Amino acid sequence: MKRSLGPRALLYPTPVVVVGSYDSAGKPNVMTAAWAGVCCSRPPCLAVSIRPSRYSYEGITRRQAFTLGIASAEHVRQVDYFGLVSGVAEDKFAVAGLTPVRADTVDAPYVAEFPIALECRLLHAIDLGVHTQFIGEVLDFKADESVLGPEGLPDIEKVRPFLYAPGQSTYFEVGPRLARAFAVGKDIGG
Amino acid sequence: MKRSLGPRALLYPTPVVVVGSYDSAGKPNVMTAAWAGVCCSRPPCLAVSIRPSRYSYEGITRRQAFTLGIASAEHVRQVDYFGLVSGVAEDKFAVAGLTPVRADTVDAPYVAEFPIALECRLLHAIDLGVHTQFIGEVLDFKADESVLGPEGLPDIEKVRPFLYAPGQSTYFEVGPRLARAFAVGKDIGG
Repeated sequence: MKRSLGPRALLYPTPVVVVGSYDSAGKPNVMTAAWAGVCCSRPPCLAVSIRPSRYSYEGITRRQAFTLGIASAEHVRQVDYFGLVSGVAEDKFAVAGLTPVRADTVDAPYVAEFPIALECRLLHAIDLGVHTQFIGEVLDFKADESVLGPEGLPDIEKVRPFLYAPGQSTYFEVGPRLARAFAVGKDIGG
Repeated sequence: MKRSLGPRALLYPTPVVVVGSYDSAGKPNVMTAAWAGVCCSRPPCLAVSIRPSRYSYEGITRRQAFTLGIASAEHVRQVDYFGLVSGVAEDKFAVAGLTPVRADTVDAPYVAEFPIALECRLLHAIDLGVHTQFIGEVLDFKADESVLGPEGLPDIEKVRPFLYAPGQSTYFEVGPRLARAFAVGKDIGG
C-alpha cells in the first residue's frame, strides 16, 4: 500500500555536480548541486537548478556560461565543502587545494582534479520558484584519459562518481552492474 | 591530462524513471527515460525529456499530466522493456504483467508495483532539439510503506533504485554509503 507524502521534490538517485563560473571580478567559483540532469541529446544540453541567492547565479548569467564537473568519490569532502560555503566569502578553489582551469569553449572554469568537465553555454534560464533552471548547451565534454573505457568514452566504474539521496542527506557510491540496457527486457512479450 | 570528446550529453549517473500517461483512447501507457531530474524545491518540480516522436508525447501534452515512477532493481527487465517498445503497438502494462493505477491528483497512471510514484501537473514544455523537456509540478509523492525509513521518507537502500550509465548502455545498482552530505566537508577551511 502506498502512502501519500504530499508535494515533494524527491528523486532517486540524483547526481552530484560541481558548477563552475567566474564572478564579476574574474575569480573562479564553484558550487555543488544535485538538481541536475541531461535534458537533450542533440544539441547536447544539460540542466542545473540554482537559487538566485547563490553567488554563482550572477556569474553564470553575466558570462552566459558555466561548467559542470563530476568528481570521484575520493573528492567527496571537497565537493561537500563546495556546497556548504559561499564564494562571496572564500576562494573555494584555494581553500580546498584544487586547481581552476579556464574552459576552452566558454568563459567559465572547471576543477582540474575531477575526472570529467562539461563546458556549457547558457541557453535558457527558467524561473520556477525558489530555483532557476539553467539549461546549457554542452560545447565540449572533457574527461581524464584514465577514466576512459576501450571505446573512448568514460567508464562509470573508473569515474567513480557518487550520488545523492535527497531527504537522507547522504552520498552513496555507484554499485555493481545490474543489467544491460536495451537488452535485458527484450524477451518480455517477445 | 584531459581529452576533449566534443559536444556530448553525458552525465554520471542518471536516474531511470518510468513516465506514465494516458493515450487519447484512455489506455494507460509507460515509457522509460534517463534524461530527468529535480529542477525546483518549491514548488516541487521535476523535469523529464521526451522526443516528440514518442507515443507518450501526445498523451502528456493532451492531458497536461504525467507520473514518474521509480522502480526497484527487481523490476529492471520490465523497465527496460518499457523503453524498447512503443505503446502504439502494445499495452505495455498488460504485456509486462504490471498494474496501472490512476493518480489521485492528475490525469495519468502509475505502476502499482514500483515503490515510488510522483504525480505531476505539466507546467512547461521546452523544445530544445530532438528532445522536449517537460517540467512538472509534483502534486503528490507516493511511496510504499515498505521503503520508508524511520523519519517517514524513503530510504534509498530500501527503494533499491538503479541508475543508468550513458554511453555504456548499462544499469547499475546503488552502492554503499560514502559520506554524510552537508557534514563531511565541514572541516575544510574551518
